[in-house]
Amino acid sequence: MSRIVIALGGNALQSKDSAPTAEGQLEVVKKTCEHIADISSQGYELAIVHGNGPQVGRIVLASEAAKDVTPAMPFDVCGAMSQGYIGYHIQQALKYALSIRNINVPVLTVATQIIVDKNDPAFTKPTKPIGPFYSEEEAKALEAEKGYSVKEDAGRGWRRVVASPLPRKIVEIEAIKDLWDSSIVISCGGGGIPVVENLDGTLEGVAAVIDKDFAAELLAEQVDADVLMILTEVEKVAINWGKPNQENLDHLSLKSAVQYIEEGQFAPGSMLPKVEAAMKFVRTYPHKKAIITSLDKAIDALEGKTGTEITFA
Amino acid sequence: MSRIVIALGGNALQSKDSAPTAEGQLEVVKKTCEHIADISSQGYELAIVHGNGPQVGRIVLASEAAKDVTPAMPFDVCGAMSQGYIGYHIQQALKYALSIRNINVPVLTVATQIIVDKNDPAFTKPTKPIGPFYSEEEAKALEAEKGYSVKEDAGRGWRRVVASPLPRKIVEIEAIKDLWDSSIVISCGGGGIPVVENLDGTLEGVAAVIDKDFAAELLAEQVDADVLMILTEVEKVAINWGKPNQENLDHLSLKSAVQYIEEGQFAPGSMLPKVEAAMKFVRTYPHKKAIITSLDKAIDALEGKTGTEITFA
Repeated sequence: MSRIVIALGGNALQSKDSAPTAEGQLEVVKKTCEHIADISSQGYELAIVHGNGPQVGRIVLASEAAKDVTPAMPFDVCGAMSQGYIGYHIQQALKYALSIRNINVPVLTVATQIIVDKNDPAFTKPTKPIGPFYSEEEAKALEAEKGYSVKEDAGRGWRRVVASPLPRKIVEIEAIKDLWDSSIVISCGGGGIPVVENLDGTLEGVAAVIDKDFAAELLAEQVDADVLMILTEVEKVAINWGKPNQENLDHLSLKSAVQYIEEGQFAPGSMLPKVEAAMKFVRTYPHKKAIITSLDKAIDALEGKTGTEITFA
Repeated sequence: MSRIVIALGGNALQSKDSAPTAEGQLEVVKKTCEHIADISSQGYELAIVHGNGPQVGRIVLASEAAKDVTPAMPFDVCGAMSQGYIGYHIQQALKYALSIRNINVPVLTVATQIIVDKNDPAFTKPTKPIGPFYSEEEAKALEAEKGYSVKEDAGRGWRRVVASPLPRKIVEIEAIKDLWDSSIVISCGGGGIPVVENLDGTLEGVAAVIDKDFAAELLAEQVDADVLMILTEVEKVAINWGKPNQENLDHLSLKSAVQYIEEGQFAPGSMLPKVEAAMKFVRTYPHKKAIITSLDKAIDALEGKTGTEITFA
């Protein structure tokens, strides 16, 4: 039986067409879980990782907007809260979608910390905007008072920016491994709660965003998954994207991936980290594969009928 | 080896003397986890349940205060968020406290739904105040618009009140049982996310607060724990509390507990639900015991040196 780690993108959790409410999220998650349950009913063993960008952004927004009423929460805590929020919805909806297919397997969300390296070069150039927009004066004040990094965001105002370091170690990995045979585990939500390891061995939450595709890749490595499956809005990875000569790729070898990246074919923060995560997985396990496709094509892609398969050679 | 389900009260998470910030919570949680790690180092097998009253209250406050900036979250989602928040802190601090005692056991937080009965009589008389204070006009408007139950709160203004139904079934119990032998699991946080089971089998979050002591009791029943240990601010349960003839109890039988409850000896919402949860545990397992004591006396109480031991006879 194949083991698959599924990384769910933002479109699996919220629709662009509806209000960003919890009720709206639950509706989208229910549809997503129908697809995931279909994959499970094909006999695959699954684990799920999800993004949290819009959700944690709104938690930070609410927390900052309410700071005169109740103290604002630090970013690592907002991440932990988003894991509870999204994980709860997925576990509720997936359990039901499985039950109506006569699959009786526990589904559970595990709060997950992921250790990042204090010296990760990402910390020297924070790039991920989080939370509300500020005026330049407010932004500079936050920089001075709280040591935030701030940046002007495409003419829309100033925002806090945080680093996006690489995931080094999943703190709860042993328990996640233990659960694999009996349960479908939702873990590493939003790329995991980023923590650094201090000299005395204590872990400490940091304001950073780990890319959820890299977190899913690390999980796939550590549970010895057969397939890393990154689900997104498009059926296949493309080169010359949006141009007349756009080419959708059925297959991508490490070698061509490197070449396309050098050509700037994949958008940073979007397709690029997905391709890079897929590449890392097949570099680690040259006999295994990664797949990038859309949620509704996942089963076809597992059967080799569509999607982009990333392999070593 | 004895199996213990520990229910942590509010004082294990936040101090009355410091600001209700996440940083303040983490400091208190670190001290709490030193005590829990000491219990673990005595060879006991543990699972942890915690309250979430002040935390979920602040999440609701922030969410409502920010509702013009980003949509307010429903109460069940706020509960799920509080499980992520508090669970993250406990798992981080406890893992460290164990590691410096050379105990290498995974610690993990599981988002937990608990099914309540739609027809629980508690739903006809909601009593638990949650979220911000409103003027009478605002409160009546919310009652009309959203169907909230509202109540005047001790001269301080109007608040939304929700029901406190009994926990019927822990949705994630199978996975929690699986994890028992290998891990310390933090589950049923805040009494669990309350859900009702619809006729079609779907679960649906409801605005309600399950008492965390009753949730811990149900967990202790289901994992066949040897001891239900409810940790609170006082070393022993007392009768005639705060009066010259106050008597601290070393032992409480079911029979005397019933009598004291009839006399109104235990404060509703405070000592009463703890005693009731303890009574339910020993009614279910007449050969087992429940203990009510303070965090720093937990080991002594397990050795029979202090605390209040509740037994069938």
